Amino acid sequence: MGLTIGVDIGGTKIAAGVVDEEGTILETHTVPTPSTPDAIVDAICSAVAGASTGRDVEAVGIGAAGYVDDKRATVIFAPNIDWRHEPLKDKVEQRVGLPVVVENDANAAAWGEYRFGAGQGHHDVICITLGTGLGGGIIIGNKLRRGRFGVAAEFGHVRIVPDGLLCGCGGQGCWEQYASGRALVRYARQRAAATPDQARVLLELGDGTVEGIEGKHVSTAARQGDPVAVDSFRELARWAGAGLADLASLFDPSAFIIGGGVSDEGELVLEPIRKSFRRRLIGAQWRPHAQVLVAQLGNKAGLVGAADLARQG
Amino acid sequence: MGLTIGVDIGGTKIAAGVVDEEGTILETHTVPTPSTPDAIVDAICSAVAGASTGRDVEAVGIGAAGYVDDKRATVIFAPNIDWRHEPLKDKVEQRVGLPVVVENDANAAAWGEYRFGAGQGHHDVICITLGTGLGGGIIIGNKLRRGRFGVAAEFGHVRIVPDGLLCGCGGQGCWEQYASGRALVRYARQRAAATPDQARVLLELGDGTVEGIEGKHVSTAARQGDPVAVDSFRELARWAGAGLADLASLFDPSAFIIGGGVSDEGELVLEPIRKSFRRRLIGAQWRPHAQVLVAQLGNKAGLVGAADLARQG
Amino acid sequence: MGLTIGVDIGGTKIAAGVVDEEGTILETHTVPTPSTPDAIVDAICSAVAGASTGRDVEAVGIGAAGYVDDKRATVIFAPNIDWRHEPLKDKVEQRVGLPVVVENDANAAAWGEYRFGAGQGHHDVICITLGTGLGGGIIIGNKLRRGRFGVAAEFGHVRIVPDGLLCGCGGQGCWEQYASGRALVRYARQRAAATPDQARVLLELGDGTVEGIEGKHVSTAARQGDPVAVDSFRELARWAGAGLADLASLFDPSAFIIGGGVSDEGELVLEPIRKSFRRRLIGAQWRPHAQVLVAQLGNKAGLVGAADLARQG
Amino acid sequence: MGLTIGVDIGGTKIAAGVVDEEGTILETHTVPTPSTPDAIVDAICSAVAGASTGRDVEAVGIGAAGYVDDKRATVIFAPNIDWRHEPLKDKVEQRVGLPVVVENDANAAAWGEYRFGAGQGHHDVICITLGTGLGGGIIIGNKLRRGRFGVAAEFGHVRIVPDGLLCGCGGQGCWEQYASGRALVRYARQRAAATPDQARVLLELGDGTVEGIEGKHVSTAARQGDPVAVDSFRELARWAGAGLADLASLFDPSAFIIGGGVSDEGELVLEPIRKSFRRRLIGAQWRPHAQVLVAQLGNKAGLVGAADLARQG
Repeated sequence: MGLTIGVDIGGTKIAAGVVDEEGTILETHTVPTPSTPDAIVDAICSAVAGASTGRDVEAVGIGAAGYVDDKRATVIFAPNIDWRHEPLKDKVEQRVGLPVVVENDANAAAWGEYRFGAGQGHHDVICITLGTGLGGGIIIGNKLRRGRFGVAAEFGHVRIVPDGLLCGCGGQGCWEQYASGRALVRYARQRAAATPDQARVLLELGDGTVEGIEGKHVSTAARQGDPVAVDSFRELARWAGAGLADLASLFDPSAFIIGGGVSDEGELVLEPIRKSFRRRLIGAQWRPHAQVLVAQLGNKAGLVGAADLARQG
Repeated sequence: MGLTIGVDIGGTKIAAGVVDEEGTILETHTVPTPSTPDAIVDAICSAVAGASTGRDVEAVGIGAAGYVDDKRATVIFAPNIDWRHEPLKDKVEQRVGLPVVVENDANAAAWGEYRFGAGQGHHDVICITLGTGLGGGIIIGNKLRRGRFGVAAEFGHVRIVPDGLLCGCGGQGCWEQYASGRALVRYARQRAAATPDQARVLLELGDGTVEGIEGKHVSTAARQGDPVAVDSFRELARWAGAGLADLASLFDPSAFIIGGGVSDEGELVLEPIRKSFRRRLIGAQWRPHAQVLVAQLGNKAGLVGAADLARQG
Repeated sequence: MGLTIGVDIGGTKIAAGVVDEEGTILETHTVPTPSTPDAIVDAICSAVAGASTGRDVEAVGIGAAGYVDDKRATVIFAPNIDWRHEPLKDKVEQRVGLPVVVENDANAAAWGEYRFGAGQGHHDVICITLGTGLGGGIIIGNKLRRGRFGVAAEFGHVRIVPDGLLCGCGGQGCWEQYASGRALVRYARQRAAATPDQARVLLELGDGTVEGIEGKHVSTAARQGDPVAVDSFRELARWAGAGLADLASLFDPSAFIIGGGVSDEGELVLEPIRKSFRRRLIGAQWRPHAQVLVAQLGNKAGLVGAADLARQG
Repeated sequence: MGLTIGVDIGGTKIAAGVVDEEGTILETHTVPTPSTPDAIVDAICSAVAGASTGRDVEAVGIGAAGYVDDKRATVIFAPNIDWRHEPLKDKVEQRVGLPVVVENDANAAAWGEYRFGAGQGHHDVICITLGTGLGGGIIIGNKLRRGRFGVAAEFGHVRIVPDGLLCGCGGQGCWEQYASGRALVRYARQRAAATPDQARVLLELGDGTVEGIEGKHVSTAARQGDPVAVDSFRELARWAGAGLADLASLFDPSAFIIGGGVSDEGELVLEPIRKSFRRRLIGAQWRPHAQVLVAQLGNKAGLVGAADLARQG
């Protein structure tokens, strides 16, 4: 099969990209994200049409945040869009006249990294996306593992603190409450409120107020050595690494790939994650250790991965 | 392939059994478990010889507690036997003249249940063995998943309580410290010490002392409705079910199979585990729920599973 | 000294009551609670005037939610009223022409129970108010202990779960997030959402929805034996009792007095609290145990206590 | 009253010291600690006689590890000596012919620091002894507060981690499991095992093995900047400071005094404790902050305190 299209449905825009067999994006077309399910179908089709004009495209892969069923056809539930058992595959196939595969967006990104990014050469990989929340995907034996009902790899909602923080999912103590971009900001704000004298750089970036501190400020301040920002990253890494150690006990992959916005900081965050992972890894002296790698495709991983999954059929 | 032999290496005895293609054990031969690695090889060979006399056996599968490498040949590390990078496959093959497969014992038991027990008909199953500790195995897409280095499915050492109880593995807060036969006894003793007047049945069974209370006493007392024993099972189930909910978020299997000595109590323990699982399952109202089943093969699961893995080669 | 006035500043109304030396309320006058600090001073004075008409009153005690300084004059900070270093004593004294004592409302209630309620005859008592939140007061050696700066006895904000639930105070894992009327409702809603079939009575009371469930419904349903409601009280009691055990290690009082709206359920909640307390009490077999008593004055404790503190000067 | 004697009963020796009204030790006499209760009475009397020879001594104060009753006469229970309801006051009084006061050793040390050490000038002080375990004493309104039954101030056994580490007291998650000399060693060993390459100084001091690492090695290595040792102190300080914040919510003292062997490191440990305390202190921006001071009397605090308590009668 030749070219396929990957679609990434974001909070503000929908991007469709034509991707070749090497994972290269040949062309991208972007439209704003509307608010209703029907309008979103229109927008997806419009983006696909825009990207594919003049090209011989053979299939479409759509990455969507939410539970996607085991047939990769229906979005059972989405947190940010009003999708409830939405038959997205059928709706889009009827309109674009191409085979469509729907995939959870974090799964798609994991597949992208496995095929064309940091995961190349590995057969058993766990990808973790540290964005606003925490998601990921599982590759075992060179296949994406979706679970019996399609909803595996919901890493962000594993409980790591009994009776811990409330999560939007209704649970308490979910991993993404402790290891995610949102958690990073909480750490920074709590620390800046408690010890403002040590958080001068951070507070200045946040226009002088604790509430003004955002994720990008924590990154900037950490690169300048602001102790509160550095400590906030260390706290995030403590929880992220502890979770990886658990996943190693369960999955024993050859590599973890850390993607998402938080991973843009590279070694600033990877190095403390590795340290925490290593400290908490059970049987560390006896077993081979999984590598902890930074993702390579950035925010294109989902689009590229969805396109490739469509190619595989 | 016709008959194969499964070997189960227990703390006090080594059992070898001839198993047919339907998972039926045709004959078993048992020898005491010696203490040194060399003597254990002798004992395994002796048990295999005893069981196979007069039969046409084609392969041997050995279930061993410990880390087994990805080639299913070497026991990297064992907690109870002095195996450190022990080439068990080679040693036994040279002696018995048959192909040998070495497998982690909990993996072997999981495979046995999947093939011939509660897991029949399922393709994606997580087996949990609640014995003295907590172990298990992962079947995804009809295959046993062992991880890149062979040491996946170490469920018992996932951290479920940060800064929690010390574990023999060196970690803290490991699942098996909260959901296992040993945990059950701890719950019962703590409660009996705090409220002896409510634990009369239990204390009587334990010869009047808190330290005398053992697992079998908790089971007996719970069946008689002793409130402390019932509450101890409920506490175990609380932690077991919470862990299953996490595993559902990660693996999304169609069924969990609960084996091990604790599962001998059947619904006495399964029912509260299901209740706890259901309460903590994320997205419970949207997703199909995995079944929580009781194992069917009892303590033969490991032997049968090892034999079948040897047959599969 | 003869009669004094106690003032209770609630969320919706301000009550002033004339109280005699036996703690009997002779007359009460109530006005609505305004929203600004100045209007609240007006309202307090109006309530005091209304209650004291025709009586010879010698002092005024005001119970206020918030940090009150060690001079019992200034409200340093209040969570629900815009008081920041508010000199309440001076303002009211100037207007009513009587000596005024300002006291934290939970301290005042503790004092009321100690003097005229469940604490009579005890010298060392810890009072815990399980209302919407969790507050309390400390009596040691027959004196109310307010701390060096006036802000002792903030029981509700002791951290009992590291990295636990966010609290309005900015902390995480505060006791009042786990043991309070608000926590009770959360427990009931979480359980009703997870197992609606077991929460029929509760859901019916809440007009069929999980969000409709309120504290009074949990009480009503628990009295009818609804399993989810009973279990919610048990969860609250688990945390309440564990906290009492800690306070026993610290303060070693002769009695705990449990007041606040949650305590209105009497033994329904007291009995499981005692059980949890007893189980977690350190050295339980060696030490005399503090009693766990239910408060006797209901929501009048604060008013009566404030009046008595004003009498003591 | 002029001179009194303080007796400190340690694990290896019993020290009796003559102390004047300024808290100065004029003379000390030391004998080995025997193993039986009767022999310990003999040893105490021998030490007292040895120290008081030729002096006009008026009373004896004995500091003992364990629960001491509210009459300061009987040791109800001791963890390390076989005392069960031991009438120590009566036994020693009969032999030495002087009034005797028995006091919990951590209470005695707290009183010593309050009277002659870091607590001078304060009226409300909490002393925390970070030794092998964690103990302490409470001074409120210039009096030692012992609780109704004599067993207050058992700080070390407040539960700070639900379902946490087992404690010798039978509880789980006790503070002393996370903030004490023993905890410090555990932190160092865990870290050295996980990342031996970063613990070279520490491992060398421990004769090359993780198990060889002791408390003094962690101190030495931390002073040399060994990252694992420094991190171990930081972990201890994290838990110590969090506990102080809780105690501030409860007691609101003007000062905390940190004593015990761990405090010998001075600012190396005090500074991170203060930082952690400040971060976790509830309402930090509104309330005056208690000081966190290092103890001044070292291991003489208990003896001096016991002598002074005997003087006070």
